[in-house]
Amino acid sequence: MKEQVKTYLNRYVLFSDSEIDEIYSKLSYKTVPKKDFILREGQVCKKKYFILNGLLRSFYIDSKGNEKITQFALENWWVTDMESFINQTPALSSIQALEKTEVLIIDKIDLENLYVSIPKLERLFRIITENMLIAIQRRNNVYLQMKSKDRYFDLIKQLPNFIQRVPQYMIASYLEITPEYLSELRKTS
Amino acid sequence: MKEQVKTYLNRYVLFSDSEIDEIYSKLSYKTVPKKDFILREGQVCKKKYFILNGLLRSFYIDSKGNEKITQFALENWWVTDMESFINQTPALSSIQALEKTEVLIIDKIDLENLYVSIPKLERLFRIITENMLIAIQRRNNVYLQMKSKDRYFDLIKQLPNFIQRVPQYMIASYLEITPEYLSELRKTS
Repeated sequence: MKEQVKTYLNRYVLFSDSEIDEIYSKLSYKTVPKKDFILREGQVCKKKYFILNGLLRSFYIDSKGNEKITQFALENWWVTDMESFINQTPALSSIQALEKTEVLIIDKIDLENLYVSIPKLERLFRIITENMLIAIQRRNNVYLQMKSKDRYFDLIKQLPNFIQRVPQYMIASYLEITPEYLSELRKTS
Repeated sequence: MKEQVKTYLNRYVLFSDSEIDEIYSKLSYKTVPKKDFILREGQVCKKKYFILNGLLRSFYIDSKGNEKITQFALENWWVTDMESFINQTPALSSIQALEKTEVLIIDKIDLENLYVSIPKLERLFRIITENMLIAIQRRNNVYLQMKSKDRYFDLIKQLPNFIQRVPQYMIASYLEITPEYLSELRKTS
């Protein structure tokens, strides 16, 4: 488990072993059963979760009462409700495990302290956050312009082993297409 | 001009005067005439722009040939095409001045060097990027769910002096409503 964290941390910035130890000492382990929530709309999110394995989704309920999936999160990703975590306000979305998921958890206050003692960690999160911003802008500006067929094939290409792990109606929600149309696309692929 | 930068920089993180001097020495000044572009779709963006005064917009042309405005940027904001700036790939959007705009410019390479010599600057950009991410998620998840009337009144509330400075069809594009409907809303407000 520690090896996975070390490999992950050193992907963008090179940490010393003692820095890895210090960061690791602030992480706590948890198994999240399938369908359990790590955050529910309305709660204040005080933690970031690093996914060791498994699968989570972020979603909110829109004004018509429909679930809107905004993100799937897989192994080696950090997940949180950023607005709630940063501003300590009630979360506007929920985060739920779609499989039994193992996570490492860091408290907001521990993370803030680590930023001060290990500035390289701040670099890592600056880079991760920039990449998240790019991903979300790309999804907004390009992805949602693509024909829905192309969005589906793009998703298969980006995350080939992912489609099988998620209920089809959730894939459809994420792609903003109907489950019926998704079913048609799957037949032709 | 330097005072404005100093006030801005010290908003989230406290810098020493010598750190301010070092950062400031890497900024170059430019006046961008109204309607001029600081970035065109297809160019690789190598700079971040700090807006001293004026107004810029980011937009792309969608598959139907329509302009889609993704962001307006005002005084004391940083603007760039994040994906192009980080990955050094051709920009998918353009950035254009809507008024005569004064900017301070930093090169990517100078910024990367400053992150190393002044880790607090990395903190500032980590925080700014988190706030941008929150804003864009909020726009996605909540804002675009609001009724278009509420989006308009929310915009007036957030940026009361902004509406008068921008052509109405651009406001409509940003709010994803028709110019005719915007005109109706303006009559009732």
